[in-house]
Amino acid sequence: MADFLQEKRWLLATAESCTGGMISAACTDLAGSSAWFERGFVTYSNEAKTELLGVDAALIRRHGAVSEEVARAMAQGAVTRSHAQVSVAVTGVAGPTGGSAAKPVGTVWFGFNVGGQVTSEMKRFNGDRAAVRSATVQHAVQRLLQLLRKAG
Amino acid sequence: MADFLQEKRWLLATAESCTGGMISAACTDLAGSSAWFERGFVTYSNEAKTELLGVDAALIRRHGAVSEEVARAMAQGAVTRSHAQVSVAVTGVAGPTGGSAAKPVGTVWFGFNVGGQVTSEMKRFNGDRAAVRSATVQHAVQRLLQLLRKAG
Repeated sequence: MADFLQEKRWLLATAESCTGGMISAACTDLAGSSAWFERGFVTYSNEAKTELLGVDAALIRRHGAVSEEVARAMAQGAVTRSHAQVSVAVTGVAGPTGGSAAKPVGTVWFGFNVGGQVTSEMKRFNGDRAAVRSATVQHAVQRLLQLLRKAG
Repeated sequence: MADFLQEKRWLLATAESCTGGMISAACTDLAGSSAWFERGFVTYSNEAKTELLGVDAALIRRHGAVSEEVARAMAQGAVTRSHAQVSVAVTGVAGPTGGSAAKPVGTVWFGFNVGGQVTSEMKRFNGDRAAVRSATVQHAVQRLLQLLRKAG
C-alpha cells in the first residue's frame, strides 16, 4: 500500500467507527508511514461523525450510523477534512449488542475515496466482537490495496 | 477504566501520534465502550495536530512535535475539540528513524487531561517500533486509570 500511495504522492486518511482506530494502527505499524499516512478520525459517536467528518446529522437519523450513505459520507469527509487524497471509512455493528434484524452483529459498511472516486460495499462477518473488528481491518486494507492498484 | 468514567459520567477522547490509533483501538476493544469513549484523533502529521487539536504551529516549531508542550496541548485540544472531559495524548519517537541525541528512539511524551487537570510525563522505552508502541499504550492506559482513581 505504501508503495502505491508514495508513487502517486497520495496521502491516506482513515475514518473509523466500529474498528476504533485499528485500521490507522495497522497502517502506522509500518516504519516510514508518516510519508503517506496523514491522519485518522476515530468517530465513535454520531457527534464526532458530524463534527469531524461533516456527515449530515439528518443522514445518520434517516439511514442509521451503520449504512451505505454514512460510510460514503465518512469517506468523503475524511478527504475534505484533511490533506489526504485517499480514504477508507468503516461503520459497523461489532457487537455483542447493537444488532437488529436488518443490521445484525457483524454488518459493516465500507466507504473508500481513491483520488475522488467514492465506492462502498457491505460485508457481514461472523464471530465475536474481536473477530468482526479484525475481519473488518483485514478487508478494509485488502480492498483499499485493490482500489489503489486499479487507480494506478 | 470504564467504571470510573461512567461513575463520573465522563467521556474519553484520545489524541495519538506515535501509537497511531492503538490507544483508541484498545479502549474500543471493550464491549459497551460507546458509553464512555467519545472520539479519537490520530494526528500523525503536524498539520493534523494543529487543525484537529488546535496545537499552535509555533509551539511545534519551537519545541518539536515530541515535547512536553505539544503533549499537553494535544491533551488540552482533545477535550476542547470534543465532548469529552478526559483525554490522553501521546507523541513520541517509535523508530526506527526519527531519533536524535536529545530525543532518542523510544522517547514518548504523555499528556493527560482529567476533568480539567492537565498533567504530563516523559518515558523512554526500549525495543523496536512495535515494542515502543505497545509499551506506550500500556503506560497510557495504566496512568490514566491512576489519574481517574485519584480524581475519584
